Amino acid sequence: MKTAAICAIGDEILIGQIVDTNSSHIARALNSIGVRVGGISSIGDDRGRILSHLDNLLKENDIVMVTGGLGPTKDDITKEALATLSGAKGTRRSEEQMAVIESILTRRGIAMLDINRAQADVPDTANVIVNRLGTAPIMEFIFPEGGKYGHKAALYSMPGVPYETIGALDDVMAAIKAQFPLDEILHRTIGTFGLAESVLAKKIEAWEDALPDYLHLAYLPNSIYGVRLRLSCYGAHDAERKKALDSAVAELYDLLGSYIYGEGSDTLQTVIPRLLQCPPDAAYQETISVAESCTGGLVSNLLTSVPGSSVYYKGSVTSYANEVKMNLLNVPEEVLEQHGAVSRECAEAMARGVAILLDTDWSVATTGIAGPGGGSEEKPVGTCWVAAAHRNPFSGEIEVASKCIKSASASREVNMQRFASNALNLLRLLMQQKLL
Amino acid sequence: MKTAAICAIGDEILIGQIVDTNSSHIARALNSIGVRVGGISSIGDDRGRILSHLDNLLKENDIVMVTGGLGPTKDDITKEALATLSGAKGTRRSEEQMAVIESILTRRGIAMLDINRAQADVPDTANVIVNRLGTAPIMEFIFPEGGKYGHKAALYSMPGVPYETIGALDDVMAAIKAQFPLDEILHRTIGTFGLAESVLAKKIEAWEDALPDYLHLAYLPNSIYGVRLRLSCYGAHDAERKKALDSAVAELYDLLGSYIYGEGSDTLQTVIPRLLQCPPDAAYQETISVAESCTGGLVSNLLTSVPGSSVYYKGSVTSYANEVKMNLLNVPEEVLEQHGAVSRECAEAMARGVAILLDTDWSVATTGIAGPGGGSEEKPVGTCWVAAAHRNPFSGEIEVASKCIKSASASREVNMQRFASNALNLLRLLMQQKLL
Repeated sequence: MKTAAICAIGDEILIGQIVDTNSSHIARALNSIGVRVGGISSIGDDRGRILSHLDNLLKENDIVMVTGGLGPTKDDITKEALATLSGAKGTRRSEEQMAVIESILTRRGIAMLDINRAQADVPDTANVIVNRLGTAPIMEFIFPEGGKYGHKAALYSMPGVPYETIGALDDVMAAIKAQFPLDEILHRTIGTFGLAESVLAKKIEAWEDALPDYLHLAYLPNSIYGVRLRLSCYGAHDAERKKALDSAVAELYDLLGSYIYGEGSDTLQTVIPRLLQCPPDAAYQETISVAESCTGGLVSNLLTSVPGSSVYYKGSVTSYANEVKMNLLNVPEEVLEQHGAVSRECAEAMARGVAILLDTDWSVATTGIAGPGGGSEEKPVGTCWVAAAHRNPFSGEIEVASKCIKSASASREVNMQRFASNALNLLRLLMQQKLL
Repeated sequence: MKTAAICAIGDEILIGQIVDTNSSHIARALNSIGVRVGGISSIGDDRGRILSHLDNLLKENDIVMVTGGLGPTKDDITKEALATLSGAKGTRRSEEQMAVIESILTRRGIAMLDINRAQADVPDTANVIVNRLGTAPIMEFIFPEGGKYGHKAALYSMPGVPYETIGALDDVMAAIKAQFPLDEILHRTIGTFGLAESVLAKKIEAWEDALPDYLHLAYLPNSIYGVRLRLSCYGAHDAERKKALDSAVAELYDLLGSYIYGEGSDTLQTVIPRLLQCPPDAAYQETISVAESCTGGLVSNLLTSVPGSSVYYKGSVTSYANEVKMNLLNVPEEVLEQHGAVSRECAEAMARGVAILLDTDWSVATTGIAGPGGGSEEKPVGTCWVAAAHRNPFSGEIEVASKCIKSASASREVNMQRFASNALNLLRLLMQQKLL
């Protein structure tokens, strides 16, 4: 199997002001084409260090992926280091990239400067893969077999801006496939919600112990979005192994039931629309609305992050102030007085209220204490009531489910995200008629 | 200056299913106490690789920070590798950590299993720093001067769960300071919004060229939140240098004016509340509301991510459907018919409408096309109108500002974030009476 190393360049990473998310996207893409990633690293904008580090990576790997250090400003020196490393004798201009630079600057209404123009110049040892989303071209350097590193090696230099790198991944993977013959690994990832990692581990222990050696299980726990289980099948060109992977996944479904919400890149917000009654040819399209207090717009933001959500998502009310809960969502004043805003009664009233106000079939509501301040002994920080409602569009009858969430985190952000995930999960279970 | 390396352990990072955010937090904390981070790396859950990699890092660094690989499940082997590396002869149980494990499981209503209990066991070579937010203890291993690595070295093993690691950083930095005498670096970070990196660079070129050698400038561009400028002062125990840093920053303010929105960890959403008329002793507290279409709750979520925002934030309406824009926000049907939902007129009507509906002094609104689908030649994907409004609470008079944003990105997420940032920035400029 071909191996790769990924290296992000930039002082800003080493002082912790930028999180390197590129490497994760690149790693996923490499895995998907059967390249094993042996290591990920970040180093600073230091010419000597860049040269020695990349030289070492090329000695030990078939493929080296580099991101960052290609900006137009003075602290970016990757391109010059790559020219030295590859023994370039000069530079040449990529006209194709120049066209992209011109179009981007025009669209942004910015005048072309020399430092912009220079971005289209690459070492004469580089093959250019056009960066359609940004100004810095992607460069491929091939070190042939029997050359500098003995084995054949390829280095790809990509931008530091994540969405540019993500947008170029398909082109870069195609370039890698054109250079190397590749193996096959298959991953299947099963998303679960509602079980702690250790409880889940216990539940599937016997199943895990019985897995053949070419199936490898990994836990991807996330304190917010639940635990995802990744089952990797090595040597997946073998049909028998592929079948074994499918059977193992089927057994997992039997063991975990409705704790499983989806697979692959599924999230609670992408699964929910699939549960709506809205076949393409249907006369009736079910719709969703949201009422939020403590999550402050996060549930709505998650649902609308799904492309095409405007078909079924009508809108939301964030009712931070109690008067908004009463005036817009019709939460009775007595509920707030007798039970408080953080209560089952209030959450259920909010869910009902928004479904009526925005005239939707489904709704979900949150009301809680995200912290760090606030809370009481009875209702400490981390307490949240979530409610989901189904409104019969013909009779107007409303069915409501609710649940109390207790998060042990002191982080406002973590609490908001947990509350939002739990709200979406409750809605999913109500839609699947699988309330636990 | 003491140097450190940071290493994240976990197959899940190498296959790209988890982004390593811990290293960034750790790097920032180390920098703040004057430790230089020379490199960040990620490796897989492979015992041999962990041993050789950490051994190399300890040879080359004073401090090695390790995260991950401490979970209760079977694929985590960091602890055992650390026992070997440090020459442990056995394990001992940390009673303090055990108490935390018990309390966490009790709060979550989970029964204690052997795999939970084992988490409190550490190699007898480790000093325990209690992890108050999770079950896996933090371990400190000291390799004394004249020992295995010649120089004195310290290794800290921290959890893989980000909020646990973040929560323990103060304790761990205190432990490092107790082990090593440390230097001082000062960083000042200036947040700018509204200038492309290359334009900004041109604007401050002469200033940058005149900086003394102990002041180092770095650009931290972000296509969503603007460009932050980080000025680092080395040898900051020297009062003259500190003064030079302050003067350099003052000059930057003169050069960039209201393109600067804040400093340090400031964001647009934390700056806005400071601009409200709400002195602690004031009888009147100004308030904010939000009306969103294309940003789907993101602006509201950003504003409520600030602790204490319930004092000035009343709520929002996400009006994805046109009927919600008309019925709740009072956008005239003629506006939608004549100008469409993505128009200056609609954005301004939404901003007015929500300020009246929720009775607030300030409001901000967004309406645009986030993509990937939709759009037209006249209004392509990436077009968004944002509006901000100020409503005089006594006369009821409303002042409105608006702006058209054109994002060149094809990413729904990037577009939503850019629209939201631009909306908040417009509100900031209106509040500062500095509309550009």
